[in-house]
Amino acid sequence: MAEVLAAAPASAWRPLDERHTLYMELPAGRVIIELAPAMAPRTVANIEALVRLKYFDGLAMLRVQDNFVAQWGDPEERHKIPAGMQKLPPEFTVPLGANVFTSLPDRDGYAPQVGFVDSFPAARDPASGLAWLAHCYAAIGVGRDTDPASGTGSELYAVIGHAPRQLDRNVTVVGRVRQGIELLASLPRGSAEMGFYDKAGQRTPIASVRLASEVPASERTRLEVLRTDSASFTALVEARRNRRDTWYQTTAGYIDLCNVPLPVRTPHD
Amino acid sequence: MAEVLAAAPASAWRPLDERHTLYMELPAGRVIIELAPAMAPRTVANIEALVRLKYFDGLAMLRVQDNFVAQWGDPEERHKIPAGMQKLPPEFTVPLGANVFTSLPDRDGYAPQVGFVDSFPAARDPASGLAWLAHCYAAIGVGRDTDPASGTGSELYAVIGHAPRQLDRNVTVVGRVRQGIELLASLPRGSAEMGFYDKAGQRTPIASVRLASEVPASERTRLEVLRTDSASFTALVEARRNRRDTWYQTTAGYIDLCNVPLPVRTPHD
Repeated sequence: MAEVLAAAPASAWRPLDERHTLYMELPAGRVIIELAPAMAPRTVANIEALVRLKYFDGLAMLRVQDNFVAQWGDPEERHKIPAGMQKLPPEFTVPLGANVFTSLPDRDGYAPQVGFVDSFPAARDPASGLAWLAHCYAAIGVGRDTDPASGTGSELYAVIGHAPRQLDRNVTVVGRVRQGIELLASLPRGSAEMGFYDKAGQRTPIASVRLASEVPASERTRLEVLRTDSASFTALVEARRNRRDTWYQTTAGYIDLCNVPLPVRTPHD
Repeated sequence: MAEVLAAAPASAWRPLDERHTLYMELPAGRVIIELAPAMAPRTVANIEALVRLKYFDGLAMLRVQDNFVAQWGDPEERHKIPAGMQKLPPEFTVPLGANVFTSLPDRDGYAPQVGFVDSFPAARDPASGLAWLAHCYAAIGVGRDTDPASGTGSELYAVIGHAPRQLDRNVTVVGRVRQGIELLASLPRGSAEMGFYDKAGQRTPIASVRLASEVPASERTRLEVLRTDSASFTALVEARRNRRDTWYQTTAGYIDLCNVPLPVRTPHD
C-alpha cells in the first residue's frame, strides 16, 4: 500500500471540497467531515445552513454505542431550528446515473453492485435505478425518528464499528469523516440503552462546527483524498485484495467494500 | 430481537466455559474472554499456562490502532516465557469435521461457507476440508512475526473495528471477548505507526489475567451465551436479516457474518 501511494501522481489526489467540509471541534481535537452534496443535496444544504447559524456550537455527544455509532445533537432541545428546516424529504437514495460510479468488482451481500462515488463508499441497484452511500466505518448519517422525513441533519452520527449496512437506504447518509474518526471511536460508551449517557456531565461537548471555507485560511487543515476513479486507487485495492507481503500465508483474493482504505494525506506543497 | 431473546428457553443458553474463560482486569474494569480450545488446542493451552504463571500481570496495552485492533503484551520483554512455550505450530485452521458447525445461509466474500462453532463466528471450505474462526469484532487473535510459528499467545489482540477478514487463516484465533470489549475499543489510539504508543506512560496497564475457574466463586462474573445451534438463535438471525420494526423502510434480506449478534446475559437464577 505504501508503495502504491508513493507512486501515485499528483493527479490521483484531490483536495477536500472546503465548501462542503465541516470542522467539528471537540476537546480532544478536530474531526473533519466531508459532505457529499451530490448524494443528498437538500440535507447537506440544511446541515450547512445550521452550521452557518452556529446551531451545533455548545451541543454534545448524545450517545456512543459500542460497535455502532457516536451520535450528536441537542440534548435539551434548546437550540432552535428555523421554520422551513424542521422537516425534509428523505434522501436515502439518488438516481443511479447522477454521479460517476467506480465499481468494485468484488461481490457484496447487501447490494447488487458496490463501489465509490467521488471517494465515498457507495452501492447501486440497476433494477431499481438507484444509488446510495454505504454505511461503512466513518460514514456520517442523519438521525431520524420513525417518520422517514423526520431527519433534518440537526442530529448526526458517525459509524464507529463493523459496518451496519442494514441501515443503507433507511437513512440519509451525508458524508464521511476524513480525519479524526478515532476521536469519536475512542469516546466513552454510554451505559444507558443504545449508548445514551446517564448523566449530562458524561457527554462530550462540541465547541463548534464550522465550514472549512469559512474558517480563516491559517486555521484550515488542508487535506487531499485519493481519487477513487484513479489508476492508483485501482492498484491500491488490488494490493489489499491480494497481499503480497511475506507476512501473509493466505491471501483473501477478495475485499469487502468497507475494508477498502480511502487514503487521506496532507498535500505536498 | 428483544422478543426472540425473551422467548428463548433456558436450554438455548449455555454458561461460559469457566475453565477456558479469562478475566483481564484493566483500570476501567473487567474484560471477559472465552477461549475456544476446540479451534486452537495447543495455543489455548499455552495461553492458559501463561495465565497460571501470572505472565500477563503487570503487562500493558502495546498498541491501539483505530478501526483495527487493541494489542497487549510485554512492552519491555521482561517477563520470561518458559522453555517449551516459546514456539508453537500455527493453528490457523482445523479439520472441517472436528466441530459442530451451524451454517449461516448468507453468502460471504471471504469464505465458501460461514457460520458458528459453539457461539464463535467461523468459516469453512469443503474443498480444502478446513474450518477456522473468523476475524469479527471482538475476536481474539495471536500476534506473530513473519514466521507463522512465532505466535505463542503471549501477545494477543482484540478486533475493535470493521472485521479484518483478510487476517483469517493467517493468524491463530483463540476466542472472543464476551463482555467488556468496549473497554478495549474506547482506549486512546496510539499515535505512532500501527497504533503503538510513543511513551510508556500512555500504555494502559493490565493488573492481572486469571482463569475464571481459578477465581474465588464470589468474584466470578457468571455469564451465559446464546447457543448458536438453538432455534432461538436461528429466529434471532432471521429477525435481524429482515427487520420487521416500523423504523425500517427497506429490509436488507441479508446479514453479514460479523453483523450477527451473539447475545450474552447474566443467568436468571
